[in-house]
Amino acid sequence: MFIKLSKQSSLANLAVNGVTCRGKVLTLDSMNPNVRRVEYAVRGPIVQRAVQIEKELREGVKKPFTEVIKANIGDAHAMGQKPITFFRQVLALCSYPDLLEDNKFPEDAKKRARRILDACGGHSIGAYSASQGIECIRQDVARYIEKRDGGIPSNPDNIYLSTGASDAIVTMLKLLVCGEGRDRTGVMISIPQYPLYSAALADLGAVQINYYLDEDKCWGLDVTELRRALNAAKQHCKPRVLCIINPGNPTGQVQSRECIEDVIRFAKEENLFLMADEVYQDNVYAKGCKFHSFKKVLFEMGPEYSSSLEMASFHSTSKCYMGECGFRGGYMEVLNMDPEVKAQLTKLVSVRLCPPVSGQAMLDLVVNPPLPDEPSYERTAVLAALAEKSHLTEEMFNTVPGITCNPVQGAMYTFPRITLPQKAIAKAQEEGQAPDMLYCMKLLEEEGICLVPGSGFGQKEGTFHFRMTILPPTEKLKVVLQKIRDFHLRFTQEFS
Amino acid sequence: MFIKLSKQSSLANLAVNGVTCRGKVLTLDSMNPNVRRVEYAVRGPIVQRAVQIEKELREGVKKPFTEVIKANIGDAHAMGQKPITFFRQVLALCSYPDLLEDNKFPEDAKKRARRILDACGGHSIGAYSASQGIECIRQDVARYIEKRDGGIPSNPDNIYLSTGASDAIVTMLKLLVCGEGRDRTGVMISIPQYPLYSAALADLGAVQINYYLDEDKCWGLDVTELRRALNAAKQHCKPRVLCIINPGNPTGQVQSRECIEDVIRFAKEENLFLMADEVYQDNVYAKGCKFHSFKKVLFEMGPEYSSSLEMASFHSTSKCYMGECGFRGGYMEVLNMDPEVKAQLTKLVSVRLCPPVSGQAMLDLVVNPPLPDEPSYERTAVLAALAEKSHLTEEMFNTVPGITCNPVQGAMYTFPRITLPQKAIAKAQEEGQAPDMLYCMKLLEEEGICLVPGSGFGQKEGTFHFRMTILPPTEKLKVVLQKIRDFHLRFTQEFS
Repeated sequence: MFIKLSKQSSLANLAVNGVTCRGKVLTLDSMNPNVRRVEYAVRGPIVQRAVQIEKELREGVKKPFTEVIKANIGDAHAMGQKPITFFRQVLALCSYPDLLEDNKFPEDAKKRARRILDACGGHSIGAYSASQGIECIRQDVARYIEKRDGGIPSNPDNIYLSTGASDAIVTMLKLLVCGEGRDRTGVMISIPQYPLYSAALADLGAVQINYYLDEDKCWGLDVTELRRALNAAKQHCKPRVLCIINPGNPTGQVQSRECIEDVIRFAKEENLFLMADEVYQDNVYAKGCKFHSFKKVLFEMGPEYSSSLEMASFHSTSKCYMGECGFRGGYMEVLNMDPEVKAQLTKLVSVRLCPPVSGQAMLDLVVNPPLPDEPSYERTAVLAALAEKSHLTEEMFNTVPGITCNPVQGAMYTFPRITLPQKAIAKAQEEGQAPDMLYCMKLLEEEGICLVPGSGFGQKEGTFHFRMTILPPTEKLKVVLQKIRDFHLRFTQEFS
Repeated sequence: MFIKLSKQSSLANLAVNGVTCRGKVLTLDSMNPNVRRVEYAVRGPIVQRAVQIEKELREGVKKPFTEVIKANIGDAHAMGQKPITFFRQVLALCSYPDLLEDNKFPEDAKKRARRILDACGGHSIGAYSASQGIECIRQDVARYIEKRDGGIPSNPDNIYLSTGASDAIVTMLKLLVCGEGRDRTGVMISIPQYPLYSAALADLGAVQINYYLDEDKCWGLDVTELRRALNAAKQHCKPRVLCIINPGNPTGQVQSRECIEDVIRFAKEENLFLMADEVYQDNVYAKGCKFHSFKKVLFEMGPEYSSSLEMASFHSTSKCYMGECGFRGGYMEVLNMDPEVKAQLTKLVSVRLCPPVSGQAMLDLVVNPPLPDEPSYERTAVLAALAEKSHLTEEMFNTVPGITCNPVQGAMYTFPRITLPQKAIAKAQEEGQAPDMLYCMKLLEEEGICLVPGSGFGQKEGTFHFRMTILPPTEKLKVVLQKIRDFHLRFTQEFS
């Protein structure tokens, strides 16, 4: 029997003894090449292996550990954090309104549920909402922003509710990308970055423009670096968008007011659309650090800026003290957007009908929680505990030879730098693997701890990192830190 | 003062007295041109006007009607349909697990809630799930499909949960689109179609290949027409995908088994990836009509087909008797997909982290509702009422001179053909409007009834239609039908 490969089309057609056996329509070679280029390390191969190991443990396979600790993602409830009672009461009331007759539910929860249900078609969260989001929830979001920003007005018409912040970020990028060849839209993102950005840019076929955060200055952002990156990029694309993550993911850096002013001036000078990813706005721990919203700073810089700079800022129900990731709630506020483009944005989001209504309801509670003088006010120790854990993590890592770690000023992650022995680097390269992937994979196999290698976020050539969430409960976090310490020493010795 | 337009870049830069005032970064001219081409009539200008009119009514503006009836979209709860008690009890229990101690909830609802919560990180629906969806829910979906298809096996690994069916459809199309110029992927869609398809194809820059359903044969699909459309398209693109909606939206047609066999044979011969949109699979009303899943027919055609034809089929929580649109639950099952492509699909969905967990929970209940011998079984009259309304609608419209209407065999819509007077067509053309848009807009202004013009779904040149959902309660539906009848006669007279 002889087999001949014909190459008439992009599909592999096998001609076997003259009979054509068609290959698949959809193969790695014939699929969307942009999708093939997408990478998303936070849920990449290391997490798939972690899930496999969990399965093996359940099946009784012997391991040097009894559970896998998934410190790869900021998933508070998965780490044992409890939901806020009031939020969940309102969600239960919205889901099953018969409970509105139940005396066990507090009056303020019922009031909230009634207000949300009254805004739903047929008084049901099972009806589609407006594509931009339920109007009264957008009003509540606008009031929240006004309060946060010391009274600077926010217009509910500029608020778009979304399926988590990721959804809004991708939608906004999609609107902005155009042109071919040297005219293709370039989008500036920080390195290290949250890989949603690089994934979305690959998917959209946009040009990724890297600007580097300065690890030696606590992952600070410097406008000189922005300018360098921009000017280099102008040679091969049309830079139009500047993305900032503040507080930083994975860096944990909280930007100073001065830095934000500089960024705004730069964006205006260079005529860039500014995307401010502020989902960690309530997660600030370090003394002397404070969250400044880009919008507030923009308005305080005067009408020259506030009336012209086009920007979008993003927020989510997934972080802060509530960590309600599974509800996929989020919003963006757009500023100075061309009204015709806004109409296009509204049209675009309408194709997906609406964000999940229960996520919208959750967002409404997050932006408008019970106040200290209201019956359902709940004091939560989550943020204080996170502050403590941020210090603990920094201190612990910095005692390990070969690990250096910036303070976790905000957000939920530490991104320590690890020194890897030359032999380990060589071995990884032999295996076609990133050296920090080799490190993290070995850590997972030996200690059951799942981290994300720094290569998944981007890092300066020749440096290596990992991202770890600080969300595990304090006692467990201590164990994790100790295990990583032991592993690091062992790893260094093994490859020396 | 003189103003000079410079055209150095795609951005409009205004030079006023020598000082350059930059225009917006993001304008209609400089935005993503694919997004500009997106159209989605189901929530288009007519719905925006309907929302405006509702606001005017609330503000006391006098109109010839007291409420707007939105018959533009299949939104059951908005039309007053009540949710299924059991589903909402389980959702309430999942949202607020303290209720698991409450005696008022039936034991079977508690059992379901516990099972779902046990599968969630930290036993909370606020944790992220696996990106493909919670494993035990995918297992339930697979069992549902097996039962539906008379035991043909379904593998949970082939199930991807999604944010409504729309999300999965767009994801699948995205994977499939590649190539440039004459090699660009062509996707065959029916005309009339559900405009998600044309919108997604515009967004992805894929080539839309129209095949026409035969209105004279109850909107039937004929393989001769598929072949005609395919051959014509081969001149300018690479056809790779065939999309079928069965039961049909907006046509209400239910495909016969023979038709489905023909389609499968055609797809195999022409090496097309088949996308079967089967979200209305439980909405079949006409005598002699039955839903046949593409998968079942495929397997019954033997291994020659079942082991090779690549396909995906889609389902949703939004339709059937529950109509839980707001939860955005859905799934797709993929068959014969290249394992490497499946890995890419899994990677792609992981970028958005996970579908809303409450929507996943809702889907679990939909595919596995209480059986007649279980305590929470609820007899629902919804489908019987829809069957009655489907007949009522067809009969009523066919009494109106100038309206002809095929039977509503399934789904939730009627798509009657309307004869428009030449003068009305001329007037619309003068105003740069589709004639059926003029008709629907006038109907909205005069009667407060919101429909979608046929031009939003596609129709044969020179024919005009509208889509109306049959979901309003019977008494209200009768009023709506009467009002449309009166309006149609008036409109015809006015333009004669």
